[in-house]
Amino acid sequence: MMQGQGLPETMTAVGISEHGGPMVLKPEKRPLPMPRDGEILINVRAAGVNRPDVAQRKGAYPPPPGASDLPGLEVAGEVAALGKGVERWQLGDQVTALSPGGGYAQFCRVHESNALPIPNGFTFTQAAALPETFFTVWHNVFERGGLAQGETLLVHGGSSGIGTTAIQLAHAFGATVIATAGSAEKCDSCCELGAARAVNCREEDFVQAVKEATDGRGADVILDMVGGEYIDRNYEAAAMDGRIVQIAFLSGAKAQANFSKLMVKRLTHTGSTLRPRSVEFKGRIASQLEANVWPLLSTRKVAPVMDTIFPLEEAWRAHERMEEGTHIGKIVLDVA
Amino acid sequence: MMQGQGLPETMTAVGISEHGGPMVLKPEKRPLPMPRDGEILINVRAAGVNRPDVAQRKGAYPPPPGASDLPGLEVAGEVAALGKGVERWQLGDQVTALSPGGGYAQFCRVHESNALPIPNGFTFTQAAALPETFFTVWHNVFERGGLAQGETLLVHGGSSGIGTTAIQLAHAFGATVIATAGSAEKCDSCCELGAARAVNCREEDFVQAVKEATDGRGADVILDMVGGEYIDRNYEAAAMDGRIVQIAFLSGAKAQANFSKLMVKRLTHTGSTLRPRSVEFKGRIASQLEANVWPLLSTRKVAPVMDTIFPLEEAWRAHERMEEGTHIGKIVLDVA
Repeated sequence: MMQGQGLPETMTAVGISEHGGPMVLKPEKRPLPMPRDGEILINVRAAGVNRPDVAQRKGAYPPPPGASDLPGLEVAGEVAALGKGVERWQLGDQVTALSPGGGYAQFCRVHESNALPIPNGFTFTQAAALPETFFTVWHNVFERGGLAQGETLLVHGGSSGIGTTAIQLAHAFGATVIATAGSAEKCDSCCELGAARAVNCREEDFVQAVKEATDGRGADVILDMVGGEYIDRNYEAAAMDGRIVQIAFLSGAKAQANFSKLMVKRLTHTGSTLRPRSVEFKGRIASQLEANVWPLLSTRKVAPVMDTIFPLEEAWRAHERMEEGTHIGKIVLDVA
Repeated sequence: MMQGQGLPETMTAVGISEHGGPMVLKPEKRPLPMPRDGEILINVRAAGVNRPDVAQRKGAYPPPPGASDLPGLEVAGEVAALGKGVERWQLGDQVTALSPGGGYAQFCRVHESNALPIPNGFTFTQAAALPETFFTVWHNVFERGGLAQGETLLVHGGSSGIGTTAIQLAHAFGATVIATAGSAEKCDSCCELGAARAVNCREEDFVQAVKEATDGRGADVILDMVGGEYIDRNYEAAAMDGRIVQIAFLSGAKAQANFSKLMVKRLTHTGSTLRPRSVEFKGRIASQLEANVWPLLSTRKVAPVMDTIFPLEEAWRAHERMEEGTHIGKIVLDVA
């Protein structure tokens, strides 16, 4: 292993002291993680906060085998040590990376293929806001959903981290975007990001809104993290040969649906979760992002929407904010 | 239009005198259909009977725009007249064809691309048993479901026309087949056709049987025409990255499901119906079948499973038998 000068033996991390509310997130001392073959150790400067972290805190989403028990799926910082066989990165390189856990800490190890250079002019907090939503949107909207230029994307939760990313990327690649969100303010944000139409889901029926906006045709791709009663309504709102991609179930995963629409419209209902995928899979997505999306970030055609930044030690406040549900865009931890 | 000698002006057909039970199917006189550009007129010698015919008789499945109001989605016979521009067929050629309706009749017009030569040594009744199930299985199992050599197919209704075809084709192309059926006798038929395991769905839980037969892995592709409570159980029985293809809903299309399995296992739930597809689409499937499946028929590696043959005039008896549900394989009408 190659490492920089003066790495400490311990670090500050925020662990889950027990399953429960935000306050169970507590700073603690941990030994530094050691990068394994092909891995880099990142001196973390910022860490993104995501819904799965909240589920993990509550005990509903245990970390996959081999992953850190600390929460945190994305970090940005400087390369502080290199595991055996690392080829791409050198000590001091500034990177942003997807990690299978352990992001709420001063140091985090990730496979070198799951790290990307920080886009030109990005701060660490902006860079830490990228991996989880960009990897998720790229795979689910463009690969799994096959969204093509000229098609219509319906994205639920349009003002969330995932939503704001999906709107911008789909818009940048020539699709028409319809977004749903839970307030007039959130709807405004969606439109500013490129949505052709935003639907206030507390006041309007999104099925009808989609039909109106598409001359009755429906949406070609639907990105859904809501589930519950949205599932049957997604089948209704989808166009012939539409693809519906499920990435979470904020309203529950058990639901009643009329599957005749799925058959008659030849819909494809699928979904995925990012965290348990292999390092190779994530590395492939990273390459795709670097080739297709990083240029858009460097030229500011696309940018992460930042909600709030909290210090690492106050991660509980970040979770509280996420659970309140009034945030727009990403919540990030600043790691001193 | 080119036509053979002595075509009659009228023909016998079996129409739906009103919506209702099998007895509403009544022989009647009709004018001969005229082949349009690119179409052939077939002097029908045999016509296949299918579930959609029963639904149409009951008023639950109206014919698509432009199709005959007579039931019947597949026929075999001799080419009796050629519409303008027909290139492949000559008068007297023996063909079997998919038709969007009008099969229960002495003459039926179809697009030339939706007809195939009768395989070597096949009778007209055997040939008429092919199109509907072979087009359906090819598209849904191999194209839509992407079944590959070495994978496991679970097919429900294994003793039906669709089921017996799916078992044979999947087996012939190197997949392991598990079939469900409603009696010990039907299960025996499934195994004789190449199923590695048949599950008597009245006595056994197919989810458990599939898990046992696949060392806990599950089925890669599931062909389902049952729906209802099978939908959630299909999600349970599917392997990681499994594909579930819905082609009918004999137990109803409205159902409760736990969609978290769809997301976590990255399943793809899709479906399709054949009848409303374009002539071009069906022509493309016909070419695929001729290249990949017709050689297996000519060498008898695969053969349609024949249940019973009724005279055209007694089509009502054919429907009665299909609705009883004790048949194994195809029910066909003999057209004198």
